[in-house]
Amino acid sequence: MRRSSNDNVKKPLRFDKNKGEFRILQVADMHYADGEKTPCEDVLPHQFAHCTDLNTSAFINRMIEAEKPDLIVFTGDNIFGFDAEDAAASMNAAFAPAVASKIPWAAVLGNHDQESTLSRAGVMNHIVGMKHTLSEVNPYGVDVIDGFGNYNLEVHGVEGSGFTNKSILNLYFLDSGDYSLVPSISGYGWIKPSQQFWFQQTSKKLQKTSKAPGLAFFHIPLPEYAYFDSSNFTGVRQEGISSASVNSGFFTTLVEAGDVKAVFVGHDHINDFCGELTGIHLCYGGGFGYHAYGKAGWSRRARVVVISLEKGSHDDWGAVKSIKTWKRLDDENLTAIDGQILWSQRPSGSRRKKPIHNG
Amino acid sequence: MRRSSNDNVKKPLRFDKNKGEFRILQVADMHYADGEKTPCEDVLPHQFAHCTDLNTSAFINRMIEAEKPDLIVFTGDNIFGFDAEDAAASMNAAFAPAVASKIPWAAVLGNHDQESTLSRAGVMNHIVGMKHTLSEVNPYGVDVIDGFGNYNLEVHGVEGSGFTNKSILNLYFLDSGDYSLVPSISGYGWIKPSQQFWFQQTSKKLQKTSKAPGLAFFHIPLPEYAYFDSSNFTGVRQEGISSASVNSGFFTTLVEAGDVKAVFVGHDHINDFCGELTGIHLCYGGGFGYHAYGKAGWSRRARVVVISLEKGSHDDWGAVKSIKTWKRLDDENLTAIDGQILWSQRPSGSRRKKPIHNG
Repeated sequence: MRRSSNDNVKKPLRFDKNKGEFRILQVADMHYADGEKTPCEDVLPHQFAHCTDLNTSAFINRMIEAEKPDLIVFTGDNIFGFDAEDAAASMNAAFAPAVASKIPWAAVLGNHDQESTLSRAGVMNHIVGMKHTLSEVNPYGVDVIDGFGNYNLEVHGVEGSGFTNKSILNLYFLDSGDYSLVPSISGYGWIKPSQQFWFQQTSKKLQKTSKAPGLAFFHIPLPEYAYFDSSNFTGVRQEGISSASVNSGFFTTLVEAGDVKAVFVGHDHINDFCGELTGIHLCYGGGFGYHAYGKAGWSRRARVVVISLEKGSHDDWGAVKSIKTWKRLDDENLTAIDGQILWSQRPSGSRRKKPIHNG
Repeated sequence: MRRSSNDNVKKPLRFDKNKGEFRILQVADMHYADGEKTPCEDVLPHQFAHCTDLNTSAFINRMIEAEKPDLIVFTGDNIFGFDAEDAAASMNAAFAPAVASKIPWAAVLGNHDQESTLSRAGVMNHIVGMKHTLSEVNPYGVDVIDGFGNYNLEVHGVEGSGFTNKSILNLYFLDSGDYSLVPSISGYGWIKPSQQFWFQQTSKKLQKTSKAPGLAFFHIPLPEYAYFDSSNFTGVRQEGISSASVNSGFFTTLVEAGDVKAVFVGHDHINDFCGELTGIHLCYGGGFGYHAYGKAGWSRRARVVVISLEKGSHDDWGAVKSIKTWKRLDDENLTAIDGQILWSQRPSGSRRKKPIHNG
């Protein structure tokens, strides 16, 4: 509803001219609280004495240095509200490495962000007022939408190419809620019809002008994440899928929309897999924050998503050729693991099957 | 989008003053084609020679005579388009008993209605132009909605009671589509985000002024119908649940909205059960039409839903007290079976649990 206060300073996101790529760093579940006063959870005994929220900040800085992302996406539980004395101060500290880097960043809410001194609306309002963020409270011109932090971002083609003023990669951010408010439904929140309707209309509008692939970011996994096991994913599943207890149909809506090739969530810190279902990769970021539950000896980690362009006919950069991902562990070498291709452009005509029904 | 042409002659539906009730006849899957030229399917050998679509018409007339409904609801596959020479003529014949009775009637589309000479839009446009129907092509004032035949009807309280100008029963009609148009999803259609958003907004608006219970009517069962077996339903399940192959979340949306107490569908002709899940009864009508597949020796049937009012403080009729249902078989005695209570008003304060979460 209300537009971000720093709209006027926003430049559109754009693919890099030299490399012909756009690089996203996903930071899932920082669980930030009060900085150096806040101890780590689930680290090895010898790590514990000197481990605080500052280790989370240090990890962000190392990832930024190593990957030089074009966008940092925080997929919720950015702060662990129960342990944060002051929500605004905690967020300022949590996002400080992103702000200091001057790299554009975007955030959505998890289920813990509102547990301190600010409501979900308050938290999202604070975020959109911070420097270098492209986050928005809700989409401009939409009267009715559930949640806080539903918006989309366009990534334009390389400056000077045929795609200078055109979105060739669409990023969708949604608020997957916190907990069910329906007495007869227990457990976590879900993406509501109003949000799905906005997503669908936005996707349809964007696809009218271009067949750009899309990526979606939110906090709570969809029930369809439970479809996978080690036979059909890359990464690990070390805990259950903590989706909502009901299916609100967003996966179906994504499949029908057709542009989103991958979904990135957090929430389950010790699951870090990507698996493909009906043409859409469902990915976890893997737990990032040191004040979040984890598994001692199993490194905190972050996901990187790299979208690469094809070379156009005049040797300039064209549309998106491929979407790759890997993770890096917060170990001495920031070891990269689990590299995989999430999507690649195929020769035109080969990808789409004809609909079976015309009724 | 376009409003029914006979809006100006519509009177609001209203509870009966004498009995303090409102009675609905559900007719599922007539599968009407070309009248006396169209033979029956799946009847006993001795029935076959003289059995045609006219048996379907005769059954409607018998049901009207026996139950004297206040509203007749046709839940799709009203005509079996593949065998109907002319869609308009087939519909005129199929709905003729309802029209002749002058009882208000409402229809939604199934997956076979558009297989003759008219598209789904064409079929629904034809229906709304017929006499005594309250059907609408789509809700007034809604710019974007999938399908044809999404609308709601209000049933006002007894004339002269405290509820004379107030809806105390809300009926929702939705187009559950025909087949998936998404190449990677096979099978039947589903209720889309645009329709769910409209439903949710409508339900919310209606609930602002009254806590009236609601009923929903459409053709294709929700995936949640597969939850039941003989241990938790009334009726029979003699074939699989032919829902969409994906879950589009409408059940979740219904639970969240909170007012709909029962859903009535058709589509699976030899399932006729009602079962309750999370406070909502999911019901089949049971196959009605003689040119529809069925089971020889297992009578065609229809569902009746009776909504009864409580007596108000001044001995006038009040709000809804209970919702009951039964079926009648097309046998010599129109035998009534499977009577059950779908919902009943409880003393105020006892029904609603407090939400567990306030986050």
